[in-house]
Amino acid sequence: MTRRQSPNNKTIEIREFHSASGGIFFMARRRILSAKTPFQKIEVYETESFGRVLLLDGLVQTTERDEFFYHEMLVHPAMMAHPDPQEILIIGGGDGGALREVFRYPVRKATLVEIDAAVIDAAKKHFPSLACSFRDRRAEILIADGSRFIKESGRRFDLIFVDSSDPVGPSAVLHREAFYERLKRCLKPGGAIAAQAGSPLFHLAHLQKKAIFLKKQFKYAHSYFGPAPTYPGGFWCYSFLSDRVNPLKKIPRQAPAGLRYYNRDIHAAAFALPAFLVQRADG
Amino acid sequence: MTRRQSPNNKTIEIREFHSASGGIFFMARRRILSAKTPFQKIEVYETESFGRVLLLDGLVQTTERDEFFYHEMLVHPAMMAHPDPQEILIIGGGDGGALREVFRYPVRKATLVEIDAAVIDAAKKHFPSLACSFRDRRAEILIADGSRFIKESGRRFDLIFVDSSDPVGPSAVLHREAFYERLKRCLKPGGAIAAQAGSPLFHLAHLQKKAIFLKKQFKYAHSYFGPAPTYPGGFWCYSFLSDRVNPLKKIPRQAPAGLRYYNRDIHAAAFALPAFLVQRADG
Repeated sequence: MTRRQSPNNKTIEIREFHSASGGIFFMARRRILSAKTPFQKIEVYETESFGRVLLLDGLVQTTERDEFFYHEMLVHPAMMAHPDPQEILIIGGGDGGALREVFRYPVRKATLVEIDAAVIDAAKKHFPSLACSFRDRRAEILIADGSRFIKESGRRFDLIFVDSSDPVGPSAVLHREAFYERLKRCLKPGGAIAAQAGSPLFHLAHLQKKAIFLKKQFKYAHSYFGPAPTYPGGFWCYSFLSDRVNPLKKIPRQAPAGLRYYNRDIHAAAFALPAFLVQRADG
Repeated sequence: MTRRQSPNNKTIEIREFHSASGGIFFMARRRILSAKTPFQKIEVYETESFGRVLLLDGLVQTTERDEFFYHEMLVHPAMMAHPDPQEILIIGGGDGGALREVFRYPVRKATLVEIDAAVIDAAKKHFPSLACSFRDRRAEILIADGSRFIKESGRRFDLIFVDSSDPVGPSAVLHREAFYERLKRCLKPGGAIAAQAGSPLFHLAHLQKKAIFLKKQFKYAHSYFGPAPTYPGGFWCYSFLSDRVNPLKKIPRQAPAGLRYYNRDIHAAAFALPAFLVQRADG
């Protein structure tokens, strides 16, 4: 990512490379936050078209305008496929978007394990539409390393959401076989996992490798897809994992009101595999 | 779109604004073509990640790496839903990608009406993987105004593909009610139309207006969707229109071999409407 003043000196240009030779840019009206934490650099910019934009180490994590695609598709397929999700774990997700979606259902408790308290603080201050659920009495917020938490806590959950950053970079550990083995031990009987899995275009090799071990570890290991306008390639992959819950079965309940992308038709559609993945990741 | 030398002077930066405050950029290794025609400015750049990129008036039309998403989704849903497509019309499509997809089927004839001969010439010279079908003996290539052709030709087709540029700008006429009325008169009994319809995010108001008149004009007027990594928002809308062909019915035939995105699961999935469109464009 690079940043510079535009010729008229009124806007700041933010660029994120999605590949060696291209990416996305925003013209920001102003920088709202720039902070170094022990874990990463956090920045928040105000843009006209995408509202506020959160960057971690220079990579776009979320924008006010398009975050609903990602958060709805991370959370609702598993919430809707599980017959009675009560105890929920979110690994990462410090912006609060996944937690907000979980609380659209009558769950008993949702535990969010975020490594960097500063991300939660930034979200509370600058992304109120995402960070609206941290004070919900059903929320348990832990500032801890998600990978260590699942190794040591001994607790079990109906659903686990892995709201991590990408398979390349600091979150690489959250995309490895050993992590999923431990994650599986944190599931209650009949539980399921939904994880962000990266770009089917830019992270294809990772996706393919991961699909091989996930298929050995879980009876149901499915990739599913949705739009993500400000992520690389605009088209995003998620993993659904369970030994008991088949996400391809018809969903008997109505989706919560107020959703902007997800509905039951989109649920079924999201699991359709593009031709270039049929023979590879899930072949 | 703006263009400038990067600091090391070895690459050219190409930017396309998708909104007032953001868009996509490429770092090109070199410019291969820059030409002004009576209709538009044509540019071709060589990039590392997306191969060759074709720009018309500064807007990305196609890249070698991701064009398959768009061309497969424009062509195959209609080719597969129609029971026996033999006479095909393509309005626009000078890069040859749609024609290539049509010729994966045993059609009798495909007529391509492109307004700007220079686009076809550029494609033949610089995009051989797209422009591979212009010499097919079933191809009829006409250099003419597509809108005038459908008004005056009197010919009728089983399928018509509208491979135009976006609903804002010079192709706006190809998105209006009168155009679709005339298009409908060019259909044989049982015929169907597939048209690119723009971005569900950036052209939403246009999509909504268009959906209203299309639903009056055609018994089956459906929006469908697919990824388009280098188009605004990365997520693209198409219209399927027919009085006889229901694209939601199960497709009885196998898709042609060699496709990279489209298959029958993707066909069914593409017609799922995002929640934000259910109450609007097709509500």
